[in-house]
Amino acid sequence: MKIVCLLDQGFEDSEFQDPYDQFRAAGHEVTVVGFKAGQELKGYQGRVSVATDRGIAEVRPEQFDALFLPGGNSPDHLRASTEMVEFVKAFMAEDKPVLAICHGPQLLLSAGVVGGRRLTAWRTIQGDLRYTDAEVVDEPVVVDRNLVTSRQPDDIPSFVSKSLDLLRTRGATGGQGPVGTPE
Amino acid sequence: MKIVCLLDQGFEDSEFQDPYDQFRAAGHEVTVVGFKAGQELKGYQGRVSVATDRGIAEVRPEQFDALFLPGGNSPDHLRASTEMVEFVKAFMAEDKPVLAICHGPQLLLSAGVVGGRRLTAWRTIQGDLRYTDAEVVDEPVVVDRNLVTSRQPDDIPSFVSKSLDLLRTRGATGGQGPVGTPE
Repeated sequence: MKIVCLLDQGFEDSEFQDPYDQFRAAGHEVTVVGFKAGQELKGYQGRVSVATDRGIAEVRPEQFDALFLPGGNSPDHLRASTEMVEFVKAFMAEDKPVLAICHGPQLLLSAGVVGGRRLTAWRTIQGDLRYTDAEVVDEPVVVDRNLVTSRQPDDIPSFVSKSLDLLRTRGATGGQGPVGTPE
Repeated sequence: MKIVCLLDQGFEDSEFQDPYDQFRAAGHEVTVVGFKAGQELKGYQGRVSVATDRGIAEVRPEQFDALFLPGGNSPDHLRASTEMVEFVKAFMAEDKPVLAICHGPQLLLSAGVVGGRRLTAWRTIQGDLRYTDAEVVDEPVVVDRNLVTSRQPDDIPSFVSKSLDLLRTRGATGGQGPVGTPE
């Protein structure tokens, strides 16, 4: 499946790199989209750097099957942009897989799409989410329909495993929902 | 007056340094408190570094008249600690001046003290605050009783000016509220 990763400076190194590698190893295509194409982005721990494949103005949500949101300082930078927030909204509106870890759910908060959903996030973001009507839990990974969320780097193995399960299910039906859904 | 500044790595350089300098120039004492005493903290722009005066375990809210919360990545680090969040709560509970800029109000969100208050913050944090019953406005500086808030580095002159006004009023009455309040 075609996964798009929204990324900016100061992402959490392992929360980008490990799922990125494992999604690709499982046969998925991952496109890194930032504010501009070809921009060198660095993780805040200084261990990982990556050049963006495309800029946000060059892509449309319809070109991708799933959205991946790593944590760190990147999500708070991204959500300052209306374009980024609208991009995220489109995936939630279409019930496409959204895979968000740590500070990643900050983008969901800004997109106004957490209402009635069950999810987790980095501990400080859990507090922000508790002001909404979302069901916020403190677990390594939470799957709620199209939404997979985790809290921190320790949770990466569970996060990747549940994300790959969801992508497998969606892939089997052309990304259109659970098996048996008419197209 | 005795001002305490809660600070951690990645603070916004000017949002710490400029108010710090101007509060001191106006005759106030500013104590920088972090997770540990004597820790070297760096601004995320790399222009300012400062060593903490005290660690959070060595201080009590009663020792200070006012609280200063600069922005950047520092507030989100600080609010992961219950000790820091409780420290902030005490200033709000006692109606002591709380001066918070940019991401500073993230600490107020985690402390659960924004209910019914009028305030501003960095644009992304304004969104988080809108899930609460606070009145969130997009203005350079907002004064609501003991609380002075601003959005970003550009707002520093207004932030410092209104903060100094508030400290002056409180100083004249021993920090116990508006002029004429019985003690």
